[in-house]
Amino acid sequence: MFAIPLGDDGARLRPLEPRHAEEFLTHMDRGREFIGRYIRLPDVVTDLESSRAYLRSYAEKAATDTGRIYGIWMDGGLVGGVLFRTMDTQRGVAEAGCWLEPSAAGKGLVTRAARVIIDWAIEERGIHRVEWVAAAANEPSIAVARRLGMTRDGVLRESYFYRGKRHDMEVWSILAPEWHTHKQAMHA
Amino acid sequence: MFAIPLGDDGARLRPLEPRHAEEFLTHMDRGREFIGRYIRLPDVVTDLESSRAYLRSYAEKAATDTGRIYGIWMDGGLVGGVLFRTMDTQRGVAEAGCWLEPSAAGKGLVTRAARVIIDWAIEERGIHRVEWVAAAANEPSIAVARRLGMTRDGVLRESYFYRGKRHDMEVWSILAPEWHTHKQAMHA
Amino acid sequence: MFAIPLGDDGARLRPLEPRHAEEFLTHMDRGREFIGRYIRLPDVVTDLESSRAYLRSYAEKAATDTGRIYGIWMDGGLVGGVLFRTMDTQRGVAEAGCWLEPSAAGKGLVTRAARVIIDWAIEERGIHRVEWVAAAANEPSIAVARRLGMTRDGVLRESYFYRGKRHDMEVWSILAPEWHTHKQAMHA
Amino acid sequence: MFAIPLGDDGARLRPLEPRHAEEFLTHMDRGREFIGRYIRLPDVVTDLESSRAYLRSYAEKAATDTGRIYGIWMDGGLVGGVLFRTMDTQRGVAEAGCWLEPSAAGKGLVTRAARVIIDWAIEERGIHRVEWVAAAANEPSIAVARRLGMTRDGVLRESYFYRGKRHDMEVWSILAPEWHTHKQAMHA
Amino acid sequence: MFAIPLGDDGARLRPLEPRHAEEFLTHMDRGREFIGRYIRLPDVVTDLESSRAYLRSYAEKAATDTGRIYGIWMDGGLVGGVLFRTMDTQRGVAEAGCWLEPSAAGKGLVTRAARVIIDWAIEERGIHRVEWVAAAANEPSIAVARRLGMTRDGVLRESYFYRGKRHDMEVWSILAPEWHTHKQAMHA
Amino acid sequence: MFAIPLGDDGARLRPLEPRHAEEFLTHMDRGREFIGRYIRLPDVVTDLESSRAYLRSYAEKAATDTGRIYGIWMDGGLVGGVLFRTMDTQRGVAEAGCWLEPSAAGKGLVTRAARVIIDWAIEERGIHRVEWVAAAANEPSIAVARRLGMTRDGVLRESYFYRGKRHDMEVWSILAPEWHTHKQAMHA
Repeated sequence: MFAIPLGDDGARLRPLEPRHAEEFLTHMDRGREFIGRYIRLPDVVTDLESSRAYLRSYAEKAATDTGRIYGIWMDGGLVGGVLFRTMDTQRGVAEAGCWLEPSAAGKGLVTRAARVIIDWAIEERGIHRVEWVAAAANEPSIAVARRLGMTRDGVLRESYFYRGKRHDMEVWSILAPEWHTHKQAMHA
Repeated sequence: MFAIPLGDDGARLRPLEPRHAEEFLTHMDRGREFIGRYIRLPDVVTDLESSRAYLRSYAEKAATDTGRIYGIWMDGGLVGGVLFRTMDTQRGVAEAGCWLEPSAAGKGLVTRAARVIIDWAIEERGIHRVEWVAAAANEPSIAVARRLGMTRDGVLRESYFYRGKRHDMEVWSILAPEWHTHKQAMHA
Repeated sequence: MFAIPLGDDGARLRPLEPRHAEEFLTHMDRGREFIGRYIRLPDVVTDLESSRAYLRSYAEKAATDTGRIYGIWMDGGLVGGVLFRTMDTQRGVAEAGCWLEPSAAGKGLVTRAARVIIDWAIEERGIHRVEWVAAAANEPSIAVARRLGMTRDGVLRESYFYRGKRHDMEVWSILAPEWHTHKQAMHA
Repeated sequence: MFAIPLGDDGARLRPLEPRHAEEFLTHMDRGREFIGRYIRLPDVVTDLESSRAYLRSYAEKAATDTGRIYGIWMDGGLVGGVLFRTMDTQRGVAEAGCWLEPSAAGKGLVTRAARVIIDWAIEERGIHRVEWVAAAANEPSIAVARRLGMTRDGVLRESYFYRGKRHDMEVWSILAPEWHTHKQAMHA
Repeated sequence: MFAIPLGDDGARLRPLEPRHAEEFLTHMDRGREFIGRYIRLPDVVTDLESSRAYLRSYAEKAATDTGRIYGIWMDGGLVGGVLFRTMDTQRGVAEAGCWLEPSAAGKGLVTRAARVIIDWAIEERGIHRVEWVAAAANEPSIAVARRLGMTRDGVLRESYFYRGKRHDMEVWSILAPEWHTHKQAMHA
Repeated sequence: MFAIPLGDDGARLRPLEPRHAEEFLTHMDRGREFIGRYIRLPDVVTDLESSRAYLRSYAEKAATDTGRIYGIWMDGGLVGGVLFRTMDTQRGVAEAGCWLEPSAAGKGLVTRAARVIIDWAIEERGIHRVEWVAAAANEPSIAVARRLGMTRDGVLRESYFYRGKRHDMEVWSILAPEWHTHKQAMHA
């Protein structure tokens, strides 16, 4: 019933709910290898039960206002999404993230979707700092952080153990005043 | 972030979430007497805690796809809402309902909002029968059922004990094929 | 330890408890097809675990005084039962129901048992309205409602989806004053 | 609905349920001092909430078949009760107990009620050993154990800390074969 | 990190935690038959899941200060342990127990470990009565009770149903003043 | 029963358990202002209930091997502590932290205690990266990180909202190989 257009190409952002578990799983199956290069999501969502459990955990976060997950739909199919892994409106901090199946890459979908939810978090919900954490080797994700106007706060050395290797993780962030400047620059 | 316009007067339908607990309570305080003539909602929502608990219970229903609640906003304020008290997509039945503070009455807001959610339930979610239960004496609610094209299935005699009196309850319903006919007639 | 004779034929009514799970399952196995023509009970009770879970749910209702289940024993064996699916002593409403395996049909057992529990609900527990809901096609159940002196409140059109078909459901009820009249007429 | 006569004086044994919380509390208030000389029950049941919680815990035991509580009613009022604090039908052991308000003492009510439930436990539920634990100084309770044909297994020295003092506790028991002999002797 | 030497032979006492589940299971596998002659522990700990669940239950007891479990390590391997099945610091009673794999028997390990934890319970935690319950036929366990200076309170006849047989259970205990005397005698 | 000496001055490290709730609260009361300059702990532990809840949460972490808390005792009193806020043995990462009441400051107690638990985490539990997060302005804590041989990974800008101000947070860490080198250098 609810959907936000992400541009002229028909892409739409909608809340991703437990009832989408089947569709989410199929989507994950299509992007499993690609998505799983740097993030654990495909290892977490492996069958209908785990898919529902994952979306259920975000329904719980939405109910307690501590996180959110949104899907990106394109040509009628779910192709990726953005989320707030955590969101603390009292303390003003939130950590955003994303994922995308390969067929939808290269269109700027994640950047567009992230802009929508970051703007909502900062302008409507009073978040002061939005964080973005990605493996240093995950260039597309780092590129999104850069496009969103974020600053690199540091590198957590060998902090992320994934598929047998220890990865450095970069922490990027944007603060509310920086977001306002970034938006003006974008529309200038 | 998500909102559906209900017409040209600026009224908008949005999911009502636990984070709206404070706003929901204020709204309930404004409409307590009027809303409470026939429905129990104002007796359930009496302070911030109960307001949050009530919205929390609907967040749980949304997460399990067994119910929904939506608020109607007008001129920036919450003035009423519509809901699916129950929704069983497997068996194809749902019970809809509504409430409104007095300042927003007489504008057809509930009928407009109910049309949106009934259409979603029947067309997108496969619901076959949408039910509407109201006290026989609750004329505005009965009028909405009639305007929605519903049929009266019966009267549950003295089934509703409320504020010291036993009320007859009318059960109205519309089936999916009837909804299709009703929509065509409306647009004809 | 506790049992109520239902007449001269040795039939007895006793609380049905989780510890009867095995006996309840065997009984359900004998009556599965017959009982399952119109009610879902046999689909719910399919093995020892589900049998225990079902009786457990009624033990929970008994503990919170929101429902009850009783078995009918005949010649040492469990042959059917009556129940209050819901019971709200504060608001004075309860919904009664029944089931029977075929070998015990035609003896008026359910009517006799239902009389005992309805009388208890109305006379000892202050219930004002006892409801009886049955598929319109379920003639034996409708006949019990009639024999209990109930009135038909209405027909919930296509409200019951069961085994691939949508059934009309009849709602019957008897109010406390009507029950008193009915009892006098019976004993006249 | 269910009740077992305990003799010619109108005393009756019935399951004690959470819905009796109010009546149970009033009864406890009447017997608080007398009952509380050796057992903790009056300290546990002090208001409506704790009364309900206590009976709720026994409803849970009944549902899992691990304990039971029964009230003794006399002249329409609750005057005491017997219980199985624990009951393990798989291992064949159960611990019985009792309480009584002073106005009902001296009539053999507890012995009569205990006989009913012990007989049920041994003959219908397959319990092999029924235990009875009482403070060595609690003469009435020790007397009941003796009247029930039990044997003293030992004295747990200073094992029971109650109201600032350490009490010796006597453990009495009767085994199934002993119960059969005891019953024959009683009826001889 | 934490360990207490039990003597000159390198034996050490350490808290046994859920993270030891695997090691605990292997140890139980080695001693299954020997340990299982009189106690149920080997029937409870049969695979990794049950091993973790058992240790988890004691972590919960430690957190609520209602029980404890400690392992005895010898030559780098877990060979047995002592525990407080229950511990009630408010009422001053605790029930101690033990187990040992056969390779470690005959060295007095359990007696040494039991002394450490009983001393802690009585001297540091204010326990007044430490109880020891063992099958009458379990001579090694009865011998430990005797060596600890305990007194036999009684014999619970046929109270313990285990592997198809009903066993008499002996209850031994030592009270705080007795413990002080026992310690002095030991060091005299 | 279990304790580790931290040096020649009698300071000892022991597991901090829910049963220490009262002592922990008194200690917190003594250090409330000093400890609370940069960390939230004193705001979390304000009365007996919250003290117990806090220690209870760490008992739960210990049971699931996901965190630990240890107290530092000096002259018979609790004066501070160290903890693993998180600990993931599968992925090899843990976040350490500390607190101290002012009377115990300046003695190197935290550094000594942190060394013990970091060594245990890396050498016995297989942790690869130990992290230390502190407000940039919290010089004593930053000094400990430096003394422990850690490296600064970055500064999370305005990420910590505390007492009305947004603080930069420094992230320091030491990896297992670095820890080995650090230990050799210390003992050289």
